[in-house]
Amino acid sequence: MSETTLKDRPLTAHATQRRRFIRDSALAALAAGTLAACRKGEAAAKTASHGPAGHPPATPAPAALSPREKADEMDRMHEAGIKAFPAKTKGKGNQLMTPRLDGGVKVYELTAREIDWEVSPEKSVKALAYNEEVPGPQIRVREGDRVRVVLTNKLDESTAIHFHGLELPVDQDGVPFITQPPIKPGETYTYEFTVPLGNSGSHMYHSHHNAAKQVGMGLLGAFIVEPKSPRSIEQVDHDYVFILNDGVHGYTFNGKGFPATEPLVAKLGEKIRIRFMNEGMMIHPMHLHGMHMTVIDKDGWPQPAPWKCDTLNVAPGERWDVIVNCNNPGTWAFHCHILPHAESDHGMFGMVTALVVQK
Amino acid sequence: MSETTLKDRPLTAHATQRRRFIRDSALAALAAGTLAACRKGEAAAKTASHGPAGHPPATPAPAALSPREKADEMDRMHEAGIKAFPAKTKGKGNQLMTPRLDGGVKVYELTAREIDWEVSPEKSVKALAYNEEVPGPQIRVREGDRVRVVLTNKLDESTAIHFHGLELPVDQDGVPFITQPPIKPGETYTYEFTVPLGNSGSHMYHSHHNAAKQVGMGLLGAFIVEPKSPRSIEQVDHDYVFILNDGVHGYTFNGKGFPATEPLVAKLGEKIRIRFMNEGMMIHPMHLHGMHMTVIDKDGWPQPAPWKCDTLNVAPGERWDVIVNCNNPGTWAFHCHILPHAESDHGMFGMVTALVVQK
Amino acid sequence: MSETTLKDRPLTAHATQRRRFIRDSALAALAAGTLAACRKGEAAAKTASHGPAGHPPATPAPAALSPREKADEMDRMHEAGIKAFPAKTKGKGNQLMTPRLDGGVKVYELTAREIDWEVSPEKSVKALAYNEEVPGPQIRVREGDRVRVVLTNKLDESTAIHFHGLELPVDQDGVPFITQPPIKPGETYTYEFTVPLGNSGSHMYHSHHNAAKQVGMGLLGAFIVEPKSPRSIEQVDHDYVFILNDGVHGYTFNGKGFPATEPLVAKLGEKIRIRFMNEGMMIHPMHLHGMHMTVIDKDGWPQPAPWKCDTLNVAPGERWDVIVNCNNPGTWAFHCHILPHAESDHGMFGMVTALVVQK
Repeated sequence: MSETTLKDRPLTAHATQRRRFIRDSALAALAAGTLAACRKGEAAAKTASHGPAGHPPATPAPAALSPREKADEMDRMHEAGIKAFPAKTKGKGNQLMTPRLDGGVKVYELTAREIDWEVSPEKSVKALAYNEEVPGPQIRVREGDRVRVVLTNKLDESTAIHFHGLELPVDQDGVPFITQPPIKPGETYTYEFTVPLGNSGSHMYHSHHNAAKQVGMGLLGAFIVEPKSPRSIEQVDHDYVFILNDGVHGYTFNGKGFPATEPLVAKLGEKIRIRFMNEGMMIHPMHLHGMHMTVIDKDGWPQPAPWKCDTLNVAPGERWDVIVNCNNPGTWAFHCHILPHAESDHGMFGMVTALVVQK
Repeated sequence: MSETTLKDRPLTAHATQRRRFIRDSALAALAAGTLAACRKGEAAAKTASHGPAGHPPATPAPAALSPREKADEMDRMHEAGIKAFPAKTKGKGNQLMTPRLDGGVKVYELTAREIDWEVSPEKSVKALAYNEEVPGPQIRVREGDRVRVVLTNKLDESTAIHFHGLELPVDQDGVPFITQPPIKPGETYTYEFTVPLGNSGSHMYHSHHNAAKQVGMGLLGAFIVEPKSPRSIEQVDHDYVFILNDGVHGYTFNGKGFPATEPLVAKLGEKIRIRFMNEGMMIHPMHLHGMHMTVIDKDGWPQPAPWKCDTLNVAPGERWDVIVNCNNPGTWAFHCHILPHAESDHGMFGMVTALVVQK
Repeated sequence: MSETTLKDRPLTAHATQRRRFIRDSALAALAAGTLAACRKGEAAAKTASHGPAGHPPATPAPAALSPREKADEMDRMHEAGIKAFPAKTKGKGNQLMTPRLDGGVKVYELTAREIDWEVSPEKSVKALAYNEEVPGPQIRVREGDRVRVVLTNKLDESTAIHFHGLELPVDQDGVPFITQPPIKPGETYTYEFTVPLGNSGSHMYHSHHNAAKQVGMGLLGAFIVEPKSPRSIEQVDHDYVFILNDGVHGYTFNGKGFPATEPLVAKLGEKIRIRFMNEGMMIHPMHLHGMHMTVIDKDGWPQPAPWKCDTLNVAPGERWDVIVNCNNPGTWAFHCHILPHAESDHGMFGMVTALVVQK
């Protein structure tokens, strides 16, 4: 799947080309547009250098502060987090991967290894990653495609890949001792299969060996299968993937915690698709401000009829696809509504981002 | 919205007028009707004064009791809780608020402050409350209404109100540093908007600043938008709101834990609507005994087709509307089916109430 | 309901007859078929006798092992668990109960008592059980049937049975002090009712007294009501019940943790029905590999239209019925996708089983 091919696909994310644009747009919107009403005191500027949520600035002992000073201090931490958004961090996951073509086969070469991963500014963690990305590179193919995934294991424990949601021959299912031997440290293992017709939609690939640890630490990615004949409701302007996780890395969207999460950006009147995927251990009811979501697919299968909501409960292993008609301009909070996954008295953190609808 | 106007509305709760009736009816049903078969030993009378669930009566050391005596002792605590239901406590939340009219605008004046709140008999907690109610006063308007919400902050920290589920202009969205400045202690802030056409249903208002704490402690309420043209399935005899919370106040329905929860009451053959709203941090699968629920709306949006269940999983931030056709007379347990949210060896507590269907 | 009658019912589980066949088939599939590709080293044979998940074999101190040796050691524990599946344990729950017939009444005699229950090999726990089974015996009747359930309480605390999902007269609802007195230790209590027409589907019976403890420890079972006129989608080859629990016994399917869970077995091309029932305190998103599930019923009520998924979130108290068209041969992992409910670095445990589709 070359970039050239990619550009011709109406359903595709165009992730690579759009990245710089997104950050610039979001910053512009935040700086110039919807935040015009906000106070911008010196205090915020002063504390911003202390870093955002999770890193409280050094303060005098609380006993020394008046109630109003304490309130101001809390607000400064909150503001610093918002102002830092979208914060630059090292590393980016879920990048669209261009396969190597071998005859008619799309070849994806993955290497699993331990890396340092910056979840949010100044918060670096040990991660297990495919190709040094958390989530791993986004694999995006079409139903009927012949696909080869070559995994090299540079971890110090065995592993295997399960293609979650794909209905493959059993020897490609990726469950050690049931469908294959474990892939030992240092070994390379090849999966190869034809993506079944009728099996399009939002799927995942992830470790199925010592998986509570390996998936929790990052061995996971999106495996998206585009349909041969898209439905009209799928004709969208942007296609976002939203992988939720909640393990030792904290509460993350696509491997990052707020303010390092990436905003979703659309122009007024555009339609976007969001593919929620939960790779964590907890439910995450995703709440969008300002506009509703129209749910179209569950685990890649169309719902009998689309239905609307503003808070969508996503359980571990589930994928839900929604459409948002971006008809309300502004910068809209978009977060898990289990509030301790999104905010503390030090400000927003974890599972928070924004949908920016530009006039 | 005056009482006069209110009485003409078929969908409205008539909460004020119905309150005393409800308690009397439920007590009558419990005392005279469905409990006729129950043993009413002296033991129960003796321990009832010790208070219900969560307050075990003083007992001899367990070692001194025979197995049967221990069983009886446990049963006495269970019975005392049931007999105390619905227990009188100080304070009542979710009371229908009559707005002041300013020209064509419905004006709701809210004051946020810290109060003492009696969750259940003898269990008083610190709460953050709108107008000294937990949940805050019920706001009930109609699509197309012009609404003004004036918030005075008497807390010792900043706050803001988000209208959860309403698709408002972004400057009314209530997210500090993104859509407005935080409302500092002592300040008054005004929201004003027209409720969008098509945005009817069960919504909420709550703090969106330091919200894990502020919502957990009570800064939340129902914001119900009646449709201009109700569907026939919405023509009900009673309209109940059921706000779930699970923070530092324990497991509550409308701010109270069993036995201080309020029963739902209907006459045989009546139809009721229940609006579940989850403002907590956990799922609560609500189980009704004796009759099923027909689910009609999610987050205020109609489901493509109504569907039936007896246990409805309500996740944080979600609202689900159901209809119950009260065709089975009796006093029916109605509780969260995560059993540790509803019962201990000291008896029922927390997320338990009853639907009383009167012959 | 005699065995003779049972054989004539297309919807029925034929549980008794099928049991030995299932174990043999699954073992055959595991040994001869889909596992052909797996390494079968001496190491696995050596450690298998140490028992499966949860019982790590004695090993040298980790410091003494090279990284590869550590990886091999972890894999040996994983393999031992898989190879032990389906492990033989003492006791089996959810066995289809043949009622005594008294005139036209189907009589089920249950005795509740404390027992020792083997959850998985070498893991024995205290349980509270009906007829020494966890889950209790499967009750399977037809709508309109007259049913009598006679409960003898051999526990050392009171109890009662609630028929969860059945819309019975209130005096049969099983809630002590609301609909009946508690059944004291040593007492026998009789429930009798006609199963309402229209109330078919997957229901449950369980304690409703001190239930967080009593249900958590095993006082629960399936109460299945067959419809008088089955829908065509219900015409299946096998009908499985899958009761989830997560209390003091650990994470279990039908009272057993992996590798003592029972596999589901079908021939290629057969259709199976699975009735998920959650009697625990947590959600369990059930994930099937290799094939999707078509959801037909919620709490015994048909969904407006069937819908497809591969991961189905089952909340406490809920029942979900699905159909699987077994069109993909092999041994397929089938597990809760909250990964810490299914796997540790010692291998799979708890909520894991397999669907074996035989060519």
